[in-house]
This record gives sequence, structure tokens and C-alpha cells, in this order.
Amino acid sequence: MPHLKTAVVGATGIAGQQLLAALAEHPGFEVTTLAASTRSAGKKYLDAIRTSAGAVQWFCREPLDQRLAELVVVEAAEFDARTVDIVFTAVESDVAKEIEPKYAQHVPVMSTASAFRMEPDVPILVPGVNHDQMPLIRTMQRRRGWKGFVVPNSNCTTVGLAITLAPLYRTFGIQSVVMTSLQAVSGAGRSPGVSALDIVDNVIPHIANEEGKVERETQKILGRLTGEGIEPAAFPVSATCTRVAVLEAHTECVNVSLGRAASLDEVKAPFESFGRELTSLGHPSSPQRLITVTDDPFRPQPRLDRDNEDGMTTTVGRLRECSVLEHGVKYVLLSHNTKMGAGKGCVLMAEELVRQGYIG
Amino acid sequence: MPHLKTAVVGATGIAGQQLLAALAEHPGFEVTTLAASTRSAGKKYLDAIRTSAGAVQWFCREPLDQRLAELVVVEAAEFDARTVDIVFTAVESDVAKEIEPKYAQHVPVMSTASAFRMEPDVPILVPGVNHDQMPLIRTMQRRRGWKGFVVPNSNCTTVGLAITLAPLYRTFGIQSVVMTSLQAVSGAGRSPGVSALDIVDNVIPHIANEEGKVERETQKILGRLTGEGIEPAAFPVSATCTRVAVLEAHTECVNVSLGRAASLDEVKAPFESFGRELTSLGHPSSPQRLITVTDDPFRPQPRLDRDNEDGMTTTVGRLRECSVLEHGVKYVLLSHNTKMGAGKGCVLMAEELVRQGYIG
Amino acid sequence: MPHLKTAVVGATGIAGQQLLAALAEHPGFEVTTLAASTRSAGKKYLDAIRTSAGAVQWFCREPLDQRLAELVVVEAAEFDARTVDIVFTAVESDVAKEIEPKYAQHVPVMSTASAFRMEPDVPILVPGVNHDQMPLIRTMQRRRGWKGFVVPNSNCTTVGLAITLAPLYRTFGIQSVVMTSLQAVSGAGRSPGVSALDIVDNVIPHIANEEGKVERETQKILGRLTGEGIEPAAFPVSATCTRVAVLEAHTECVNVSLGRAASLDEVKAPFESFGRELTSLGHPSSPQRLITVTDDPFRPQPRLDRDNEDGMTTTVGRLRECSVLEHGVKYVLLSHNTKMGAGKGCVLMAEELVRQGYIG
Amino acid sequence: MPHLKTAVVGATGIAGQQLLAALAEHPGFEVTTLAASTRSAGKKYLDAIRTSAGAVQWFCREPLDQRLAELVVVEAAEFDARTVDIVFTAVESDVAKEIEPKYAQHVPVMSTASAFRMEPDVPILVPGVNHDQMPLIRTMQRRRGWKGFVVPNSNCTTVGLAITLAPLYRTFGIQSVVMTSLQAVSGAGRSPGVSALDIVDNVIPHIANEEGKVERETQKILGRLTGEGIEPAAFPVSATCTRVAVLEAHTECVNVSLGRAASLDEVKAPFESFGRELTSLGHPSSPQRLITVTDDPFRPQPRLDRDNEDGMTTTVGRLRECSVLEHGVKYVLLSHNTKMGAGKGCVLMAEELVRQGYIG
Repeated sequence: MPHLKTAVVGATGIAGQQLLAALAEHPGFEVTTLAASTRSAGKKYLDAIRTSAGAVQWFCREPLDQRLAELVVVEAAEFDARTVDIVFTAVESDVAKEIEPKYAQHVPVMSTASAFRMEPDVPILVPGVNHDQMPLIRTMQRRRGWKGFVVPNSNCTTVGLAITLAPLYRTFGIQSVVMTSLQAVSGAGRSPGVSALDIVDNVIPHIANEEGKVERETQKILGRLTGEGIEPAAFPVSATCTRVAVLEAHTECVNVSLGRAASLDEVKAPFESFGRELTSLGHPSSPQRLITVTDDPFRPQPRLDRDNEDGMTTTVGRLRECSVLEHGVKYVLLSHNTKMGAGKGCVLMAEELVRQGYIG
Repeated sequence: MPHLKTAVVGATGIAGQQLLAALAEHPGFEVTTLAASTRSAGKKYLDAIRTSAGAVQWFCREPLDQRLAELVVVEAAEFDARTVDIVFTAVESDVAKEIEPKYAQHVPVMSTASAFRMEPDVPILVPGVNHDQMPLIRTMQRRRGWKGFVVPNSNCTTVGLAITLAPLYRTFGIQSVVMTSLQAVSGAGRSPGVSALDIVDNVIPHIANEEGKVERETQKILGRLTGEGIEPAAFPVSATCTRVAVLEAHTECVNVSLGRAASLDEVKAPFESFGRELTSLGHPSSPQRLITVTDDPFRPQPRLDRDNEDGMTTTVGRLRECSVLEHGVKYVLLSHNTKMGAGKGCVLMAEELVRQGYIG
Repeated sequence: MPHLKTAVVGATGIAGQQLLAALAEHPGFEVTTLAASTRSAGKKYLDAIRTSAGAVQWFCREPLDQRLAELVVVEAAEFDARTVDIVFTAVESDVAKEIEPKYAQHVPVMSTASAFRMEPDVPILVPGVNHDQMPLIRTMQRRRGWKGFVVPNSNCTTVGLAITLAPLYRTFGIQSVVMTSLQAVSGAGRSPGVSALDIVDNVIPHIANEEGKVERETQKILGRLTGEGIEPAAFPVSATCTRVAVLEAHTECVNVSLGRAASLDEVKAPFESFGRELTSLGHPSSPQRLITVTDDPFRPQPRLDRDNEDGMTTTVGRLRECSVLEHGVKYVLLSHNTKMGAGKGCVLMAEELVRQGYIG
Repeated sequence: MPHLKTAVVGATGIAGQQLLAALAEHPGFEVTTLAASTRSAGKKYLDAIRTSAGAVQWFCREPLDQRLAELVVVEAAEFDARTVDIVFTAVESDVAKEIEPKYAQHVPVMSTASAFRMEPDVPILVPGVNHDQMPLIRTMQRRRGWKGFVVPNSNCTTVGLAITLAPLYRTFGIQSVVMTSLQAVSGAGRSPGVSALDIVDNVIPHIANEEGKVERETQKILGRLTGEGIEPAAFPVSATCTRVAVLEAHTECVNVSLGRAASLDEVKAPFESFGRELTSLGHPSSPQRLITVTDDPFRPQPRLDRDNEDGMTTTVGRLRECSVLEHGVKYVLLSHNTKMGAGKGCVLMAEELVRQGYIG
């Protein structure tokens, strides 16, 4: 693997920290620049994440790399992307809309923001799912006159759904999908994030704008690359997104109408074999299996299964027939929203883009 | 309202306590007998629910009635039901199967157990939903040679679903239902109930036997009384039942395929008018509205909405179109599993059975 | 009780809402003015607490009074206090420092802010505890040239401690106090309050500035009124304040060194008789007992005991000897931080100030 | 390190599983026997921990060793301890009282049960704290005619307290200790353990028998070995033990009266240097530091700090002066109750007993 100078933009926030954790001791991506807003610029990283009361706001389980702790943070708006080979961003959507194109003029930008996801010349790349959409990057570069590009990850609720629908779609076709999510509070970030007052002994049955994102992103990710861009998959998705008192990992209850009849054993097989082309490459951030199927009727559970393969495998359980949908099956999936669904998913995707020559 | 001598069987358990709370200061049902297992028999009720370490195991928010605290508990297996006018039971299903028929030879038995729910001559009565099935009680009495009868309530997850589907079914017809529940831990009772180790920072994606119960009971409740018994409603129900870190009140995310096209406003109307025939009677345990519709996009929430109308109204929110099902709508409902879904729902049903002459 | 026109300042925040809940249907205090910051001024109250996404941010269990919902909010900085007879405030300390003196020039101000608590001519009044400090109000008025005054409540963690120490102090004397609190998240308010990410499956072992407040306020409240002001009680208090995953009600584990030897029965008696002079007056917001002693070894528990007497009684349990402190006893207390420890405690104190002629 | 055949008794329970996790891939202790009650005997381990509903009840984060999964469980009462070199037990106290002496006739028994802790010829050994009490093992063997011995660990709440008091006691002396614990639910095990109904949105202010254990064990552990046995440390300990909604790791708020005046810096030094004699030996289960001191005012926190050094370091924070106790200091400690406070603490102690020639 080539050695690439790497910037993390939005490095002080929780999503940025997840990127730093995913990049710690990475054999190919060396973090040489940490960028953030004016408030943090000019401070050592450790000081930038310290509150006035002295508390260090480092939220990942992985320890903070001592070298990064000492790095002086630069201002995102003034950062010259030409000094690195790749940029990972973890900023709010409105900020992303401004700064990502600046960076993309020069270098590849792997983004956790939603700003560019629905642009017609931008693919939302999900590991193992839609590598066939990568050539759209060349279109984006040509149209926009960029040397680099922006590749956003999907919403953290979309990623597990897309990964588990992909093998079904390829094998059986899909007529429709009904999904109810039970999402972790970490998906809301920290500023302000979910208040303890709202989630202890409670469920919040709505997450602003989430359902539409999940529905549209899923169709785009499973869509078909044409000369014009991506033609979304034709099947409708109906999502209900809720928030529960779980720290990390989204649970999703999925009902799928397949394109043709299939027994549960027939359905299980493509889950288990899914993603071999990717996982066999041995990328540093890759799990051994993109999907892990469990037969335990009480699994997957967030606390017990989220850390499998360092949060990079999607666990599928409770595979059953659905009596309502035609050729219907239903299952429960668990996806780690701050690992595969966030920074580390981006890093894995970047590893593959390096291999395919889009980066580096 | 006539004055009826009332027994509560299984009075020491959490479900029995919910019955006692529902019957406290009731103008028509006077609790004159408390029955429980051999272990409690012969003790004053207060002593029967006290642990060896001295802790009083009274789990309801309502204070324990001082008169009941002093009542000596009798053994359920030896209790002579002829000494009362009505029996409410809150025992395990296998116990119910044995003792409820003994009582029912003499007096009406309102049961929270599942033992008789699927018997062909037994209606599962839900307040406001299927009073037209009451005449089946006469069939039960004739066939079994009982003076009394057994009327079970539905599963606590079924009740909110049945109440909200009923107005849709009557108004538009229903083709199919997909439902995912996020259930409270109190639904599992206390012995053993849900362990703290399993639910803090977690979701349990399966509740043993629950999904089948919800599916079959819903069809029976919304079924049609014929000469032979109840012909279940023909529409399929596909349920996924999960447990979340909520103390009380089940949240259910429901997708319904209606029998014909209807706008959201058209759908809202029958929700709001549902159950007037019942609520207008002013039964002591009746809410003012069986269904409360909220327009707040972040409601219903268990902690904020469960205590409305003392847990006897079902709250419906997030009414939207479903892009997958034909003539599809979706909504989120909240139902108080230990009030309308348990003892107090039974008491309300009994109040109506008194009015209609089946009891007393 | 005379009828007094009442303003609530800071009415849109959670502490202000607790005041509104405490004043709902109050026989003596009629809320005629709602004041808040510029952002809310000019809007109907219901609109002022509605988010852009349409969610109504009303956080109390008690329903919002429909009359208040329609009231147009005035700006706190421009509110003319002469239009009312009494002002209750629920604003941040820095705002309180500015606006409370303006109001106090004309009318009594009952404050939930800490701004004036440690002023030498201002008593921190706690119901039943230190009514003998009321005359300091006259000194305050004289020195400052105010027709009204500012009477702050104590910190929500201090109030339960002061109420339970008061009978011990009067009866036995106190040499010292060691206290560890397990505080509810509602004590931190909502903006930003405690993040779900920080409290699920966690304890936060520090609350900024809380321990010093508890220590100093306790000494002042139990101090002695002299010609010069209040001479703090001489005994040291050592507090450790922690935050736990509880919504409402603070638990405090207290070790006290009494002034002389006393058996546990001797200690229990003054707890039980404490506050009769106040509770016998039948004030609208008064509990029947200021302190409730429980013998159940597993009580008090926040969820089971906080709502006793609508959160206005302090529950004391686990009374035992302390083997470390001289004449040591220890106990666990439970105090409802958003009822007696907040708005409703202020209202009760105001009721007594009316009776004693300081208000109205 | 010598290679020792190892039995784990009570292997199917949660405490036994923690032992298995601690012994997984251990370079010196090879688990050759799994023993449990009659119910499990004769089954493969994996089948023994599977419920009738098919759920595998493996509760540790570490995966279950595949070799152990296949091992056939033997019955504890009939297990011949002569077939192994060392036995680790994780059974209830009454069972321990019966079976541990049988094993100890032949081989060393490291016990997590409380059965023998207060026997005069039995030391409660805590890593790094009281190795000087090891010779009491020889007395036990002589008096009882055992070739082996029983060495119990301390209560999981005692262990962190003893580890942090030890350096203070040695350096400054201790006059007295006041401690309030906020304990994790895992400390109660699983059968039945703490019910979700008791801990969500709640605190349980009492743990049966816990406070006395903590007080007496601490004095014994820090006591002095004499010809007669152990003379307990003379300082009194006053404990209040509570349960909070935390999965793992006990938080303890400690106030200590030192034997002489010391500045906070002087107190910090012995914490930081404590246990070097042990940690420098590089035992497989040893942390690098027995005590980790943090200056972050908001630490230690259970979720953020419990997994440091795989749960084998005790974190101390919030070091401050205590205004009540003579030469008083106070601090908050965090100790992982199912690692250092349970199986893995036993294993570390056994590693040292091997080195010192008591085992193997």
C-alpha cells in the first residue's frame, strides 16, 4: 500500500474523532493535518478538545494517539489541500458544501457529510455494495474540472440496510422494502445530540429528515450507472426511524418483498457469501465478513454484537418469512453507526479506491 | 352500577397488583377476596408481598389500599368462587388452564392469561373494538355447561394494534399490516422479567412467542361472529416484536394497506371518532377518548404520553403515507401495557359486560 | 388567601415551566404575565415553546394551562414589575443579577437563581427550616432602598440536605456532615443539560461548582440571624456530587456527627415531627409532612418515592449508626429536585411569606 | 511459567464465565475441566449454556473459546480435584462451603465466593496489597490437614477500596474511612440479578449484606499477620452501598482521615507508585499500573475508564481535601467489578502465588 499524507477536517468533533480512531496506526494513511473551525485553529489538538473546566473531550474507546495530541490544528477554511494526498471530512452539511469543493479541486475528499450525496454526478459508495458506480467519479471530475473528487458515505442508517439488501437484490431482485429502525443516540452526535432527559425510559419516534434520506440513498446506492449518472433502483422503501436508549449501533427491522420466491435457506446463502471480492483483499479496515448471519433467536443485540470485527461487519438475525409482502422475508440487522456507518467505513472505502487507482 | 363482590386471583404478582390498582375505590367492584399460590395463602396481603429482607414488593404507583393490605390471602386452588360475583385472574397460563374453568362454572372470569384466547368459543374482548363478539359468551356457557364464563383480554401488544386497526378496518377495509413493536420491560413481569444486564444500552430483538400471538389475536379480535364461532379477519399481519429500555408503554410502528385509497385526513377522522359509543357511557375506568391523535412529529413518546387518561387512551402519531403497501398508510402508536393492556383494560371490559347484562 | 397578580420570568425554560406547573390553578397566585428573552417576546406562549420542526417543548407531566398557552410573552428586560404583586424568576444567574434588582425595587421576587444567595443581606429561605431568617428581608429592603426584595431558593441538592439536617441540628447539634449525592439529570436543565451519550451506562462523578454551593448554602441556611446578617452554622460539610441516570429526584447519602449521643429511635423522632408548624397551616403547596421516614431497607428510591406528596416531602431511609463520626448516624434521603427543590418549593415559601405579611 | 492443569467450577454462571474469559489463552493455566451443577453435568459446555429457546447465554465480551465450548461439563460435587493442579471456583457461598474444602484437601483453590473470607486462618488476598499475609496459607494447611488451600478474593466493592487505601495506609496511616459506592448491576450476577424494572430511571440505595462485608474485609486485608492469624486494621470504615444503572465497574466516593497531615501532592505520589513490585513482574494478567490517577475533574467514569488495562487498573480521580475528617482527603475511585474485582483478579493473584511457590 502506498503511503499517503492525510488530512482530517472537522477533527475535533465526535465524527472527526471516529476518523482519527479509524486512521490510528494505519499502514497507508498517515494523518499529517488536523483541521477544524476558527475556534480550534492554532491550538494543539489536545488543548482544542479540552473544555474550560479541564475535561478532555475525547469520545472514542481507542486511546488518542499521542502524536496527534500534539499536532497544531489548522483552520479548515484556509487549509491548502495540496499539502496532502487525501482528505477525510467530518463537518456539518452546510460547511461541507463550501469547503469540500475547494479541497476536491486538488485531491480526493472522502466525506461523512450529506451535502453531495444526492448530486447526480456523485456516487454514494458503500463498501462491497456499489463499486460499479466508481466510474461516475471520472464524470464528476470532468464536469467540475476537479483533479480530486468528493465521495460521500451514506447515512449511518442507510449503510446496514444497503449492505443487507445488496445480496438480495442481486440474487432475487427486490419489489419493495419496509424498515423500522431503533437507532443509537451517538448517531445524533454531541452538539447538542440527544438529551438524557429525552431518552432515559423513553423512545423518540422520529428523527428529523432521516426517513427520506434512508429511502432515497438506498435507491441510489442500489441503482444502475448509466451514461447520464445513476438510475435509482425502482423498488420503493418505506422507513420509520426511531431513537432508543442505546449508545452505539443501529438495529433495523426489515421486511423485504423479493423479486421471486425463495426459501429461507436460499436467502441465507447470499448474505453469507456477500462481499467476498472485497474482504478477500485484506484491506486494513476490512472485516472478514461484510455480513454475519446469526441463528440465535435473540440476536443481534447492540451491546453484544456491535463490536464484532471492530464494528465493520453487519449482523443479520431473525430471518423469517413475511406473511404480508409477496415473496416476503423479514430480518433484523445490526450495524455499528460510528464504525462501518461513519469514519471507519469511509476509510475502508478509501482503501479500495486506492487499490482501484482513484486515489494516490 | 350494581355492587359486586370481586375476587382477584394471582393478587401478589405484578399483574395482580395492577388489577388491585385498577379496582381501588371502584364504585361497583368491591374486592372481597385476594387469592394466590400456596406460598402466600394464610398470610395478610401485606406480609405476602414482603420479602425476607423486609422490602414491600408493591410495584404500582397507586398506593396499596390499607383495607386490602390487611386482608388474609386465600389459596387460589381452593377458593370457592361462589362467594363472589366476579373473578379477575392474573396467573400464568398453565395455572389459568386449571383454575379458570373451576371458577367459570359459577361466575364470570375476566382473565389476563392467554390460556383460553384461541379457544373457538371464547372471544378476546377489547374495549370498543369487538363488542359484537359478546354473544359468543352464551355459546361458551351452553357448550361447557358453565353458569359463568372466561373472557380473556388480549396480549398487551395486541391491544393497541387492535384498537387502532378497528376504525380503519370498519371504514376502509384492511388488506395487510406490517408492525414492529418497541416494548416496555414491564410487559415481561418480574419473575424473572427482563434483567438489567440485558436491557441497559441494548435492544432485545425477540420476545418468545409474542409475534404469533399478536398476529393471530388481531385477526380473531377483528373477525366476524358466525354461528360456528369467530371467523378471523382475512388480512395477514406480519409482526416483529422487540424489547427496549422503557419501563412502561409499548410503541408500535404500523404500516397498513387499506382496502381503498384514502387521504391522510380521511384516515385521521375515524381514529378521532372511534369508540364514542363506549366512552360516552361514562364507565368508571373509561377514558374520554379511546384514541388520541397527535400532530406533534416527535410524539407519541412513552414517558410523555403513557399516563394520558390514566393509561387508557391509545395515542396515534406520525400519520403518513406508506410508499410500499397498496393504499398504504403508516403511523406510530403508544399503548400503556400495564393499564389498558392489562388489569385496567379488563376492568373496563367488565364494566361494559355488566351494563350489557353478562355480569351481575 | 389574598389574590395576587403574578409574573413568571424565564417562563419558557424548563425551570420556568416547573413554576407554571406549580402555579396552575393556584388559589392565591394568578399568573398574569409570562416573561422571557427577546427571542420569545411577542409570541403566544405556545408558539414560543414550539420548535421549528413543530414539536411543543413542554416538559412537565402536568398539562399546560390553556389560558397560559394563549398568553403573549413579554420581554423580561422590559417588563414593568409594578403591574404585578409578585415575581417568580427562573433565569440564568447572570441574567438574574441584572433583572431581579429592577423588579425588587417594586415587588417581591422569589428566585430560583443562585445570583443573590450568598449576599450578606439576603436569606436563602427553605420551607420549614429557617423562617427565623425572614426578618433579614427588612434589612435588605432598607439597605438597598427596595420596596420589594429577592428571596432565592437554595440549590436543588442543598434543599433536601438542609431539611433533614435542621431537625438534627435543633435537637442534638451537629459537629460535621459528609454527603455524597447521586443527582438526577433534570437538575442540569436542558440547554444543553446532560447528553444521553454521557449518562447511559455511566456515572459522572463531578458537577461543576455544585459541591461548594451545597457546603456554603447549608451552613448559611442553618446559620443564626444576628444584627449584622447571618452567621453561618459552624459545622463543616464535605460534599461529593455525582450525576446518575435518573430523570428526577436527587438521592443523598449522608453521614452526620451529632452534637451528642443519640439512639436511632431518638434520631427518628425529630425527623418525623419536623415542620409541623408549617404543614399544619395547610398552604396550597404544602405536603402533609416535610419529612417522611421509611423503614423499608431498600427505600427511598427515586422512581418509587419521588412523587409522594407531589414531590414536596423529603423521604429519609436507611437510618443507621456511623462507625466513623463521633455520635455518628447515617441515612439516605430523596428529594424531588424539580418540585421541592425548584419551582414548587419557591411557591410554598411564597405562600408562607404572604401569611407572615412580607408579600401582598 | 509452569504449565498447570486448571479446573473452573461453576463454569456456566456469569462469574464462572468471567474466569473462563480471564483464562483464555493463558500461558500457564490450561483449563482442562469445567464443572457445574447436576443440571449441566454431562452436557457439552456450549449446550449447557444454551436456553431451551436456543439462545447461547455467554455474557462476556471476549468470544467463547471453541475448545471449551466442546468440553463436557462434569458435576462439581463429584469432581476429583486430584486430576488438576489448581481450581478456580465461582459458586454460591453455601455451595462453596461444602465443595471447596474437598478440593482443598488436594489442590489450591482460588475462590470468588465469600464462604471462607472471614475464617481466622484464611487470608483474603488482593493483588499488590497484602502479599505479606500469604504465609497464613501454611497455617491453614497445617490446621486443616490440607495439601491445598482456599484463597478467596475480596468482595468486588472491597477490592478497589483496599487497593487505594493500601498506599495511604502504608505512607500516612489511616484513622477512618467513609465510603459511598455506586455499584454496577453486573455485581448482582444474573440469577436473578437486578431487574430492569428496578434500575431504569432509578437508584437502589441498599445492597443486602454488602456494607458489612466491605467494612470487615477492608480491615482484614489491611490487617497485620501475627502468630495467631490476622489482626484487623484498627481504623473504622463506614460504608453506604447503592446500585445504579451501570453495567460494569463500581464507582466509590471515599473520604479518608489520614494518620498525619499531607498535601494533595504528597497523597498523589504513593497512589502512582503503588504496586510496582507486583506490576514489574510482568504477570500475564497484570496491569502496568495498579492505580491510575487522573487529573480530569470529570473522571473516572465507568464507561470511559473501566476497560483501561483490560479492567485491571483502579482509576482514582477528584483528589481533594475533606473539610470534615482530620487530615482528611477525598477521592473517587473506579474499579472493574467483573475483571479485577472478580475472575481476572483471582487469576492474577494465582499467578503471583505460583511465583512465590504456593501453587504448582
